[in-house]
Amino acid sequence: MRTQVGIVGAGPAGLLLSHLLHLQGIESVVLELRSRDYAEKRVRAGVLEQGTTDTLVEAGVGERLLREGLPHEGIELRFGGAGHRIAFEKLVPGHVITVYGQQEIVKDLIAARLAAGGDVRFEVDDVALHDIDSDRPYLTFGGERLDCDFIVGCDGFHGVSRPSIPPGVLTTYEREYPFAWLGVLAKVRPSADELIYARTERGFALHSMRSPEISRFYLQVSPDEDLAAWPDDRVWDELRTRLETVPGFTLTTGEILDKGVTPMRGFVAEPMQYGRLFLAGDAAHIVPPTGAKGLNLAVADVRVLTRALAHWYGTGSADLLDGYSRACLRRVWRAQHFSWWMTTLLHTFDTDDSYARRLQTSHLEYVTSSDAAARTLAENYVGLPYEPGD
Amino acid sequence: MRTQVGIVGAGPAGLLLSHLLHLQGIESVVLELRSRDYAEKRVRAGVLEQGTTDTLVEAGVGERLLREGLPHEGIELRFGGAGHRIAFEKLVPGHVITVYGQQEIVKDLIAARLAAGGDVRFEVDDVALHDIDSDRPYLTFGGERLDCDFIVGCDGFHGVSRPSIPPGVLTTYEREYPFAWLGVLAKVRPSADELIYARTERGFALHSMRSPEISRFYLQVSPDEDLAAWPDDRVWDELRTRLETVPGFTLTTGEILDKGVTPMRGFVAEPMQYGRLFLAGDAAHIVPPTGAKGLNLAVADVRVLTRALAHWYGTGSADLLDGYSRACLRRVWRAQHFSWWMTTLLHTFDTDDSYARRLQTSHLEYVTSSDAAARTLAENYVGLPYEPGD
Repeated sequence: MRTQVGIVGAGPAGLLLSHLLHLQGIESVVLELRSRDYAEKRVRAGVLEQGTTDTLVEAGVGERLLREGLPHEGIELRFGGAGHRIAFEKLVPGHVITVYGQQEIVKDLIAARLAAGGDVRFEVDDVALHDIDSDRPYLTFGGERLDCDFIVGCDGFHGVSRPSIPPGVLTTYEREYPFAWLGVLAKVRPSADELIYARTERGFALHSMRSPEISRFYLQVSPDEDLAAWPDDRVWDELRTRLETVPGFTLTTGEILDKGVTPMRGFVAEPMQYGRLFLAGDAAHIVPPTGAKGLNLAVADVRVLTRALAHWYGTGSADLLDGYSRACLRRVWRAQHFSWWMTTLLHTFDTDDSYARRLQTSHLEYVTSSDAAARTLAENYVGLPYEPGD
Repeated sequence: MRTQVGIVGAGPAGLLLSHLLHLQGIESVVLELRSRDYAEKRVRAGVLEQGTTDTLVEAGVGERLLREGLPHEGIELRFGGAGHRIAFEKLVPGHVITVYGQQEIVKDLIAARLAAGGDVRFEVDDVALHDIDSDRPYLTFGGERLDCDFIVGCDGFHGVSRPSIPPGVLTTYEREYPFAWLGVLAKVRPSADELIYARTERGFALHSMRSPEISRFYLQVSPDEDLAAWPDDRVWDELRTRLETVPGFTLTTGEILDKGVTPMRGFVAEPMQYGRLFLAGDAAHIVPPTGAKGLNLAVADVRVLTRALAHWYGTGSADLLDGYSRACLRRVWRAQHFSWWMTTLLHTFDTDDSYARRLQTSHLEYVTSSDAAARTLAENYVGLPYEPGD
């Protein structure tokens, strides 16, 4: 079996790449370990940058996103007993974020690929990458062989693609945070129209949503937190304590659909290419979720890579492919920095002394009182413009 | 002997306070341990915020400052083999910094105080504060007694005023940095028109100046650096290595007039008042010099305190005096944060891993490419506006 681009992983990166390549007349096959049902229900990110929304709409897969997604013109930073709105409509006019679950994007992309006759294979076993440093790389899976011109690893942080690169090739950069997020999906209407990022003495909390009927919450917890220690009542009590800190705000509670603990980590592998293997999205880099950048970075990678592959197939020139890693890494490091910045701005660190806590308060007061400082948050949050080459 | 306000310390804070009180018709006596010659030659800060310049000019002591001070409309951040200008004229129109040595301000203020018949006493021994929690505080020095309505401690971080407050009253916040600055005063014309803040793998370096004939340099060194290890040749070699990193820049070298090692520390004592004793400037708070904020904070404190004392003498109301500490501390913490931010942006930390170094580079690239981010630097550097009450 043969295709032009073999894609490992049917998350948003792999599926969008397959779709964008199809629009350029380039064939691909997507291989996914998990079932379609699992991929379509996996709860992950849900905040789309303006550029991510634009990319999906321009690619013709934004119809439901435009209908059901919730455009937001701001977020709230809550600390010291008051809420402070970061007003995108004033700070970065013309840019919004759109709240739309990653699993909804996955559903839309799978539907689009299948409608176009695309080849997306779920529940494949034993995916392995071969001869990636040659002109004839190939994938094996479940006893089959798939010959490719290129392989793209879109299989996330724990996938097989990155470890297929020989030792010594990649330089990795990593930051572990001394806490995790307890994520909660609840069948309750959002308690506010916009996201609320709350800094409290007990730790960070985030009020978010996936739809007008589904709320999403996060609580800063220990890195080794035991989910069993968090019955629903305790979750709601802690969310109330951390979020009901301003007059007039009442948390709406109800049925909890899902709970999970997300580690907080920053990671970058450089370069994002080895021979005929390219890494995109979480396979190459992950960010702590505070800045809502993971999914958006994956979309940016895929944009760059699509253009580079189309250039190769159109002209035979590897120039853009050779520049792929460098073109992506500037945005990747900007997102790493922004995610670190949002994380340290809003979380409590056991190692912080009283001086560090005062610095954090002063920083929050500055971000919410200086137009310039608020704009640094806003422009990163809605997404910096794609540069030429992105 | 009796006065209205007894001031400990004839640095810029104490002298300016005495002068501003005089303009309000309030008497004061300034007591200084050192000689007038020492005070007038002590090399310290030299970058004045717009508000500091305005304050001195409005107080009638800015004549020489306006004539000899060097207004600067920008600074340069130098890293990665290139210089990046932070252009105040574009980012914060109407605001400049003025390069004018602190010792020149001291000379101007001493001259103004003496011309007006002010009482400034140098080389006084054994200054001690008494009954500061009563309505009748007094100072003793060299066998004399000075009864006051109020005492103001402007005697710096190591002065006697702050330790005169009983244990348990003040809360202190402190941050030690794992490096110091080797400061150099040289009789050479500046090698560039503006200040250059250089981040290099070998550590931070700053190119500054005091006049068209006098340059001022700083090098990041170990916190316990031995001056004897830095003969002039080594100083110039290291400055060249850290500053001659962009095409076309050549360091002008010559006679070194003075060398010293400055520790890098952040410190705040709260509140800045105890009974009839008020602390101003370094007596209450110090910042690492990277943000050039120490002198400017002292001037801001003195502005607030002058207004509060004038209000008390004019109306008998202690409202503004009672609010002095709170009015100052917001600006103090803003400066603490900005100074920490500039310091971590530009210095190398032995504890930084490769991830942290990449974050720093991404942060520098952002500050020098985003208009909003550059403006956060610029607006803090030229000085945020005084708020009502400042």
